[in-house]
Amino acid sequence: MTGTARNAVAEALATFLFVFMIIAAVNGAGDFAPLAIGFTLMVLVYATGHISGAHLNPAVSLGALIRGALGVGDFIAYVVAQLVGAALGALASKAFLPAGTPVEIETAPAFIVELVVTFVLVYVVLNVATSKDNDGNSFYGLAIGSVVVAGAFAVGGVSGGGFNPAVAFGLAISGQFGWANMWLYVLAPLVGGALAALAFRLLNTHDLEKAK
Amino acid sequence: MTGTARNAVAEALATFLFVFMIIAAVNGAGDFAPLAIGFTLMVLVYATGHISGAHLNPAVSLGALIRGALGVGDFIAYVVAQLVGAALGALASKAFLPAGTPVEIETAPAFIVELVVTFVLVYVVLNVATSKDNDGNSFYGLAIGSVVVAGAFAVGGVSGGGFNPAVAFGLAISGQFGWANMWLYVLAPLVGGALAALAFRLLNTHDLEKAK
Amino acid sequence: MTGTARNAVAEALATFLFVFMIIAAVNGAGDFAPLAIGFTLMVLVYATGHISGAHLNPAVSLGALIRGALGVGDFIAYVVAQLVGAALGALASKAFLPAGTPVEIETAPAFIVELVVTFVLVYVVLNVATSKDNDGNSFYGLAIGSVVVAGAFAVGGVSGGGFNPAVAFGLAISGQFGWANMWLYVLAPLVGGALAALAFRLLNTHDLEKAK
Amino acid sequence: MTGTARNAVAEALATFLFVFMIIAAVNGAGDFAPLAIGFTLMVLVYATGHISGAHLNPAVSLGALIRGALGVGDFIAYVVAQLVGAALGALASKAFLPAGTPVEIETAPAFIVELVVTFVLVYVVLNVATSKDNDGNSFYGLAIGSVVVAGAFAVGGVSGGGFNPAVAFGLAISGQFGWANMWLYVLAPLVGGALAALAFRLLNTHDLEKAK
Repeated sequence: MTGTARNAVAEALATFLFVFMIIAAVNGAGDFAPLAIGFTLMVLVYATGHISGAHLNPAVSLGALIRGALGVGDFIAYVVAQLVGAALGALASKAFLPAGTPVEIETAPAFIVELVVTFVLVYVVLNVATSKDNDGNSFYGLAIGSVVVAGAFAVGGVSGGGFNPAVAFGLAISGQFGWANMWLYVLAPLVGGALAALAFRLLNTHDLEKAK
Repeated sequence: MTGTARNAVAEALATFLFVFMIIAAVNGAGDFAPLAIGFTLMVLVYATGHISGAHLNPAVSLGALIRGALGVGDFIAYVVAQLVGAALGALASKAFLPAGTPVEIETAPAFIVELVVTFVLVYVVLNVATSKDNDGNSFYGLAIGSVVVAGAFAVGGVSGGGFNPAVAFGLAISGQFGWANMWLYVLAPLVGGALAALAFRLLNTHDLEKAK
Repeated sequence: MTGTARNAVAEALATFLFVFMIIAAVNGAGDFAPLAIGFTLMVLVYATGHISGAHLNPAVSLGALIRGALGVGDFIAYVVAQLVGAALGALASKAFLPAGTPVEIETAPAFIVELVVTFVLVYVVLNVATSKDNDGNSFYGLAIGSVVVAGAFAVGGVSGGGFNPAVAFGLAISGQFGWANMWLYVLAPLVGGALAALAFRLLNTHDLEKAK
Repeated sequence: MTGTARNAVAEALATFLFVFMIIAAVNGAGDFAPLAIGFTLMVLVYATGHISGAHLNPAVSLGALIRGALGVGDFIAYVVAQLVGAALGALASKAFLPAGTPVEIETAPAFIVELVVTFVLVYVVLNVATSKDNDGNSFYGLAIGSVVVAGAFAVGGVSGGGFNPAVAFGLAISGQFGWANMWLYVLAPLVGGALAALAFRLLNTHDLEKAK
């Protein structure tokens, strides 16, 4: 399997596994859930990075699009694959693990922290995985996963800790996120990811000639 | 010492140390046991990877066999060495540390989470340690150990957290796992590992010419 | 954007994000706050290191100045950028997150632990990020962030865990640090950073010809 | 500064910092003390590895001696430096931080776990930092520090978690370890380290021609 189809399957598979493990961690890992969730992202990024770039997140794919590292057709394929993977991961977990109850959030702080943490996430992804200054490094998965560890510990109590519209979609299916808040879990990360891509473009003009 | 004998001794020694430390962590590390166990796997993978590939797990060796990175004779030698090491590690721990009582599990959820987490583990191993795209990386041990950190936090309460038939064998000897559930702790990881190898073959056709 | 302006913007942006996340973590991460804070530093160092060197801390910039890796003009630009970023991060957090109450400290132990941990931090930064022996390594962000993880766990209860005059300035604005103690949070880290640079110069004479 | 004098100063400085931070962590980090202690070792190894090899531990230096990576004169200089650094670190901590009370141990289990964890530590050090198979890797500090994270979580309650005669000497001065048990904290790690070096020699004959 090659090209966009291969990338889409890899994104769907990894997002499926990510959402299944997130729901298992929310159910079972207690106070350590942010560590389990961020470490899961880290290992999936290390396993999938060499195939599709391991976005697993429409906000990351949007950032990659704006940065110039992903075409429009691939962007659509990636996001569809992520949403399909997330939905299947949520359905699989519902069949075997307890359902969740939606977290309560206040709109303004939740919007801000989802935006800021996703800004950090996409800013980190673009710098560690798409800047030619960092070609061939071994830290990209550690850096990307650790944003989610830190973000989920710091603001999980404020927003529930989505930072990812596909994950939020899965968590709405499994019952951890309320459908009425879905606009926030989609909009805030996309705005954060877009702003991060603009910051990358502003600061890394030497990288814009070559996309990875 | 060279060749298969060297690899088998390295696998037996590392699995011995792994099982001894797992039982010590289950006894002594409380809520942090998943961190202690996963970090132990990480350090043993970094120490042993350059010798035998550091499987320490029949499900990983099965995945490597199906992926084409291990011959049948070596597969048998690796699994025997892992089982011997695990048994000796369990016996050594019983001589000095308190025995455990078997964890209670429900069959269907336990089977599924053992299968899924071992799928992630073997998918990560094959991608980070046997794909030529990732030759010479420094993250393989971190990625492999962190699967167990995340998995044990997320689903340790569902299945007890085996993800490894040799470890399960050791934990049955030491009393943490029930002998009546051993079929599950063997079958679910082997199925997960085999499926991960098939997913690797599907997505990484360019790697199948060259096995490490 | 290039040169000092680019570096200053990168320092201001990363310090803004660092202080925002620190205050969020202090409010929301409970006992895990040191992990969230240190991991945030790690990811920002990995994202920003290839741009400005990712100091995010006047004590680090002072150490780099004394070691010979930063000019006086750049030193001033870095520190101003760090202070501006920290102030904006604190103000942003105050608009959306609860304010803090100043930690109580005893002067002598707090001074010593701020000095020692910042010594470790700057000694690590200079060795992992400016010694030619370690060119091209992938561990610099992990090492730098982990100093703050360890330091905040070990002595957070003694000094509040600043190790960084810019962060201390932000935490005074947000209410976590008392203004009356600000001299300590500035002086102790600067002394620690300066001593670390002298230790580096003593032990790494072969590095002093070439600054990164 | 060059040669053995430089190495000894680097060992003394890093062991001083290590012991100071260990005592601070035991006093202040609660259940997270193993993480703080192991991460401190990791960062000191990354900072000092390129100078002296970053042993910070007579058991590691003994292993390096037996493996053939350290001469007898250097071995003596390293151990003296480690003991001096540890003593000074303990005295500095006593001046500013509360003294400890000796942990209670049972001799046989404490001896065994000190031996086994130090075996793992030295086996990891020799493989990740002295095998030519792993030249130029970025994971050596992570691997070495993580042994102590895992070991202290798993068996800290059994032995107090020394794994290092110099650290044990410092902790006896500060009051955390009893002087009457010092023979155990010296002998068990040295036996574990020596056995690890023999295992390395058995399994890595191709490495014995070239010492780092």
